[in-house]
Amino acid sequence: MLTLSEVVSSITPADRAAMSAAKTHWDAVAHPLSSLGLLEDAVIRIAGMTGSPRVDLGKRAVVVMCADNGVVAEGVTQTGQEVTAIVTENMSTGDTSVCCMARRAGAEVVPVDIGVAVPVKGEKILQRNVRRGTANMTQGPAMTREEAVRAIEVGIDVVRALKEQGYTLLGTGEMGIGNTTTSSAVVSVLLHKSPSEVTGRGAGLSSEGLRRKVDAIERAVALNRPDSADGVDVLSKVGGLDLCGLAGVFLGGAYFHIPVLVDGFISSAAALAAAAICPAAKDYMLGSHASNEPAGAMVVEALGLTPFLFANMCLGEGTGAAAVMPLLDMGLAVYNEMATFDGINMDAYVPLA
Amino acid sequence: MLTLSEVVSSITPADRAAMSAAKTHWDAVAHPLSSLGLLEDAVIRIAGMTGSPRVDLGKRAVVVMCADNGVVAEGVTQTGQEVTAIVTENMSTGDTSVCCMARRAGAEVVPVDIGVAVPVKGEKILQRNVRRGTANMTQGPAMTREEAVRAIEVGIDVVRALKEQGYTLLGTGEMGIGNTTTSSAVVSVLLHKSPSEVTGRGAGLSSEGLRRKVDAIERAVALNRPDSADGVDVLSKVGGLDLCGLAGVFLGGAYFHIPVLVDGFISSAAALAAAAICPAAKDYMLGSHASNEPAGAMVVEALGLTPFLFANMCLGEGTGAAAVMPLLDMGLAVYNEMATFDGINMDAYVPLA
Repeated sequence: MLTLSEVVSSITPADRAAMSAAKTHWDAVAHPLSSLGLLEDAVIRIAGMTGSPRVDLGKRAVVVMCADNGVVAEGVTQTGQEVTAIVTENMSTGDTSVCCMARRAGAEVVPVDIGVAVPVKGEKILQRNVRRGTANMTQGPAMTREEAVRAIEVGIDVVRALKEQGYTLLGTGEMGIGNTTTSSAVVSVLLHKSPSEVTGRGAGLSSEGLRRKVDAIERAVALNRPDSADGVDVLSKVGGLDLCGLAGVFLGGAYFHIPVLVDGFISSAAALAAAAICPAAKDYMLGSHASNEPAGAMVVEALGLTPFLFANMCLGEGTGAAAVMPLLDMGLAVYNEMATFDGINMDAYVPLA
Repeated sequence: MLTLSEVVSSITPADRAAMSAAKTHWDAVAHPLSSLGLLEDAVIRIAGMTGSPRVDLGKRAVVVMCADNGVVAEGVTQTGQEVTAIVTENMSTGDTSVCCMARRAGAEVVPVDIGVAVPVKGEKILQRNVRRGTANMTQGPAMTREEAVRAIEVGIDVVRALKEQGYTLLGTGEMGIGNTTTSSAVVSVLLHKSPSEVTGRGAGLSSEGLRRKVDAIERAVALNRPDSADGVDVLSKVGGLDLCGLAGVFLGGAYFHIPVLVDGFISSAAALAAAAICPAAKDYMLGSHASNEPAGAMVVEALGLTPFLFANMCLGEGTGAAAVMPLLDMGLAVYNEMATFDGINMDAYVPLA
């Protein structure tokens, strides 16, 4: 299995020549210049990721990292930890929201048990449990550094396997009760913001619950003192196994030259950690939807991403990543199927003066 | 053929009981309450339009109203009028951007020659030409009131035909060089804004061209004095045949209980005129993407719509309406296919305190 350090040392920036070639092709397509906006930008960026202006997004998957979080003992969620295992198993049978949406987007859902607290069964579940849920981060580090590295390497290895199976586009999703708490903690440290600035209600928390959640994050950060310059340290002390696995998917995408769609808040927190570990990995991330969580916009801005779906979605599971796949397909259809100005003997629209 | 006055007098508000039933079903679906945000709202609104919480969007079309505008003689565009006919014919052969995108969205493209300046050929084109392009609105009214009413009735009749063929969702699109100029004029009058506040660069106009465009609108409004309380008067004096046809599609959608997706600026200007003619028609409009034109946001706000795609698209043709169809499908997939809390023996997520 590839090690994290091998991967990080091999990631290179996106291919600017391929991006330039894709831009040239867009400008030749018979339509007003840049009139498909961010859909054009996405195709150009994907060309840079894969190293070719011939873009194919035919085979796609949403990787759903599933894990439990010891911090739920602090009363930071309104849902019990048992829900993680139930929904993880439902991912295998296709009975989750992201499964319904992914079917429509032509995407496989790939659930990974990277840290669920109890054994889960299901034909489609990748059994890669690193530990049965994290420790309570208000009492000490959520996991050891070695466990965090192993979980990141699981994410990288999932991308390797999907690359070998011909996948060309990945979405990121997660299932783990308590993971908006860990995500807020990670974002708080990496963006140097106070926990109250970056903490929201997750899946419907009360005001009293929100107060407990901010308090738990404050105590976890104060006790563990994560090093904001060290993404692995932050993930291991105040993160989760799902966040580690997703950070691995982003790093694996960069290593294997597969575009990876960021989902909502939790996925973007993992992307932020991946970028802290290897800044060049940002070149291989694509924005999808804007999270409702208060820190969502801060994180995508820090990553230089531009989400284009603003639908007040806050479901998680990778639903935002799945939602935008057909939009990418439609931009790509114009890029690949439309005639060029030359081909139809029409003058190109003149650029803005 | 149905007359405009018959249609307007028969349009009723959306069915609140069906909307309430759809909301009740969403709350029973096993997912965090309201977590699909605007996708949930769209399904609820569609239930209200059709009068049933059983929502089916299986058969869909993008109606593309094609027409020329006499105001192009004022140098308000950077593209020649001949492009309208070329692109209209390309709609029939499937060689336009909206055709590429609609294929991906499972939608038919229905081009309508409602006012192209020259005869156009194409098997799929509905031949409903009311007149061969409008007059130059800076010299007098763009068309007579009778012509405007006939063009609106063409739009209504297209919806009737599509309803009879089993269509359940319509998008609105247009092709007509000069139609951001007429749209800005219509919006300026209906929203009581100065032309400079509501006029943008359309498909890549220079700063000098923008100045000419604002000037032409100012002169047209001053000369024709359209009555802002009378949508038909506004459309006939400073609108276009494509805008009239689209206003008819919105009114027809309301009459025949078919949801109609607003596209970008031109479509939303037509929607605004339809709402001026019959305010209850707003209940049957769905937002799609946010236009880049400066007045786009003002118009959707006036219509009470909430676009959810912010991709800096400004291509027209109905591309924004086509783009969001798969998003509606994905929301609907969760609504129709997901288990309910009862079905999986899980407690419902508690609403926000």
